[in-house]
Amino acid sequence: PVLYASLCGMKALFSPLLPDTYITKCLLSFVDILMAYIVESFDRETKVIDFHYPNELLQMNNWELQDEPATLDDILISCRATLKYAIKTAHPRYFNQLSTGLDMVGLAADWLTSTANTNMFTYEVAPVFVLLEYVSLKKMREIIGWQDGRGDGIFSPGGAISNMYAMLLARFKMFPEVKEKGMSSVPRLVAFTSEHSHFSIKKGAAALGIGTESVICIKVDESGKMIPADLERRIVEAKQKGFVPFFVSATAGTTVYGAFDPLIAISDVCKKYNVWMHVDGAWGGSLLMSRRHRWKLDGVDRANSVTWNPHKMMSVPLQCSALLVREEGLMQNCNQMHACYLFQQDKHYDLSYDTGDKALQCGRHVDIFKLWLMWRAKGTIGFEAQIDKCLELSEYLYNKIKDREGYEMVFDGKVCPHLTFTPHADNSSAVAPVIKARMMEYGTTMVSYQPQGDKVNFFRMVISNPAATFEDIDFLIEEIERLGQDL
Amino acid sequence: PVLYASLCGMKALFSPLLPDTYITKCLLSFVDILMAYIVESFDRETKVIDFHYPNELLQMNNWELQDEPATLDDILISCRATLKYAIKTAHPRYFNQLSTGLDMVGLAADWLTSTANTNMFTYEVAPVFVLLEYVSLKKMREIIGWQDGRGDGIFSPGGAISNMYAMLLARFKMFPEVKEKGMSSVPRLVAFTSEHSHFSIKKGAAALGIGTESVICIKVDESGKMIPADLERRIVEAKQKGFVPFFVSATAGTTVYGAFDPLIAISDVCKKYNVWMHVDGAWGGSLLMSRRHRWKLDGVDRANSVTWNPHKMMSVPLQCSALLVREEGLMQNCNQMHACYLFQQDKHYDLSYDTGDKALQCGRHVDIFKLWLMWRAKGTIGFEAQIDKCLELSEYLYNKIKDREGYEMVFDGKVCPHLTFTPHADNSSAVAPVIKARMMEYGTTMVSYQPQGDKVNFFRMVISNPAATFEDIDFLIEEIERLGQDL
Repeated sequence: PVLYASLCGMKALFSPLLPDTYITKCLLSFVDILMAYIVESFDRETKVIDFHYPNELLQMNNWELQDEPATLDDILISCRATLKYAIKTAHPRYFNQLSTGLDMVGLAADWLTSTANTNMFTYEVAPVFVLLEYVSLKKMREIIGWQDGRGDGIFSPGGAISNMYAMLLARFKMFPEVKEKGMSSVPRLVAFTSEHSHFSIKKGAAALGIGTESVICIKVDESGKMIPADLERRIVEAKQKGFVPFFVSATAGTTVYGAFDPLIAISDVCKKYNVWMHVDGAWGGSLLMSRRHRWKLDGVDRANSVTWNPHKMMSVPLQCSALLVREEGLMQNCNQMHACYLFQQDKHYDLSYDTGDKALQCGRHVDIFKLWLMWRAKGTIGFEAQIDKCLELSEYLYNKIKDREGYEMVFDGKVCPHLTFTPHADNSSAVAPVIKARMMEYGTTMVSYQPQGDKVNFFRMVISNPAATFEDIDFLIEEIERLGQDL
Repeated sequence: PVLYASLCGMKALFSPLLPDTYITKCLLSFVDILMAYIVESFDRETKVIDFHYPNELLQMNNWELQDEPATLDDILISCRATLKYAIKTAHPRYFNQLSTGLDMVGLAADWLTSTANTNMFTYEVAPVFVLLEYVSLKKMREIIGWQDGRGDGIFSPGGAISNMYAMLLARFKMFPEVKEKGMSSVPRLVAFTSEHSHFSIKKGAAALGIGTESVICIKVDESGKMIPADLERRIVEAKQKGFVPFFVSATAGTTVYGAFDPLIAISDVCKKYNVWMHVDGAWGGSLLMSRRHRWKLDGVDRANSVTWNPHKMMSVPLQCSALLVREEGLMQNCNQMHACYLFQQDKHYDLSYDTGDKALQCGRHVDIFKLWLMWRAKGTIGFEAQIDKCLELSEYLYNKIKDREGYEMVFDGKVCPHLTFTPHADNSSAVAPVIKARMMEYGTTMVSYQPQGDKVNFFRMVISNPAATFEDIDFLIEEIERLGQDL
């Protein structure tokens, strides 16, 4: 029980000094477990996943919460079991999501963040992290191209929330009275985004009381880009109905095709009709770090707000999503509630560093340190090299598939480090799910699939994992063929 | 450059195997820095904070982001600087926020979470963590008292977001068409909460398009509790005006006084007028773990939803906030958008474990493992002992202050482990800020202050730090007297 109490941080109840050498030792042997897992995760001989169905997995360990404390042995067994059945997201053959890979500096930074265990709401309790957020947001705004990096921004819990913030700001900018009086005080608002945009735009509209029917989906061309003429047509149409267009969300790197909406043409439309222009660059925003590829976002500097998730193509550990805003002061005015227990106005330091009232969150996790430390370690050129490499791998895959027997490119944009393709088959909508299920059961690799519009299930191969190589791309195609040969 | 590239996870660009022994060594020496910081943080001889004003701190290290990679030395210097100027939130004399302390098992669990680096949206990519969330939410619902732990819930990025979810669900429950049609399709909605409730209720109402003026603040009695008769009066009044009361947020543990609204009486009013009853137990919800103190939340089982933040009184590392919901299926219906790239309906496993579409977030950080592992390690009785101890310390402080020369209890509820009091002085509103500024400059302790209504600045002493002892309480009072003796 002494050992247990000590490990569990309960020792403070019995002794004023904690932690002691014993606890240090416990933590270090725990780190050994993590190090072994990391080394294993990068090993191609290891499975990406040791898959079990939910009901099986529930029975593979005792996961229940008890009244009594577990033994130290049980705790270590639980940790080992958790890691055994976890997805190895660092594995060079894990391609399943837009966020893959594990950067060692990012990991170290996240461990430091956990150890510092503080909250971003005030300079008072997070002085360094608040400054690093300030420095990093300014740098990101400079890269977007806003003059002298001016503007505002915040790190939020994911791209969906960043996009929702943008919509909230656009509404407030046009109708500041909505904060006090609600939607009943404003005319019927309408937002516009492409039919290939991320679902978070509609989700945000539902939450904000705008309603999903007020999100008008603009047609895309054959390469998945929003058609600016259709945008203009729908804006005019909405105005004729007496609705008020307030928000256009262009996408830089769509989720399924990786397409980039034409930002310059869209910004012209937005300017003409005085509508807030948002760029959802959750996935593609990171291309701004690459001199070779940033042209795909030409016009991003004309946006009023930009979502950019370093936890995707820049491989910063989850979560790390930024919303950048061109107008200073707007976030504060839109969201502030002046809580007097937190944002005291008679504090002894410069209150502009108490950023918490800009957010919808009260407590806010420190997401900045991972990005900041990786940026220091790699430099902008390091991120650039990493991103350029992902695009090279994507081009390699493209060249491999485009003339290959038995495959069809669903979309061959080659603009983002991801490609969509499908193996030919009679029962083509069933093929991808079956191959995917087999991938997971064998545990050899993971890649995502989905339908889109009238196109049945196809694979969406995302390359954001810095550990992936040309050989891993070769392996993926061979594995798809092996797993699907009887289909 | 080889060393640098290796440490920075860039080695993957040059070599297929990563990480190697060198990286392992780098990470381990990094862990040594963290261990030294942890040991120092628990040492009372160490300062809680090495305070510098923002402009000074900006100059104490080179924090800028560069094009070129930094050296390994620079990275380690940056980490040491970050820790040097960070708040030692684990310090036994850090009382500044509702979240204090550092639990070693929680920390280990957070390191494992970072290492697993995955996303809660699907079982596919977070099988174990999704199951642990399921197990833990069910356990929390059992503790609330819902039959067989039935219901729903989610871990969200903080109590403010959990509260906003509750309001969103209440609105959707009453007017499901609001999701598609927005607020223009529904009558004028009004929400009710006490004048001492957390600012996130108004913030949520502003975001959701309800508007802050539609949040009606109910009077509190002299102990800071919502007056149910006033709630009923205001509901009737709103109905007479043609408004639709849809949401009551009762608070279990108010932010400033730590008061508990009378949940049974409030639930009677909610039932009578068919209004959603939410309990914001972000701070006080953890008392449900204590057999001695859970009576303060009597009636919580009648709520439709409950916010409960284990990152506060249970000392789980930040962030860990749960929203518990009595009705099953409602969250899914309210928030789902059926993204076909993520929530494919033809997957090979039980899709009820793909919980992502219940959330407003798309990507969602794994917040559950810290709570789950600590719960395993301590057992329910371990959390109970920890919480009871905080209340004991609070009572000790109460007894110390109540008859002490020169102090006044602002509120003597003794129901939560926090107390508000003020040292007597002529210029009383200026005293607390000056003492607080001196605390930070000396770095000896940290405690929060604020005004409330007609009461000028007073100290709010929060005890959630498991490392704090009776001696630390003595120290705090002596320190306040030392720092304020000339005022």
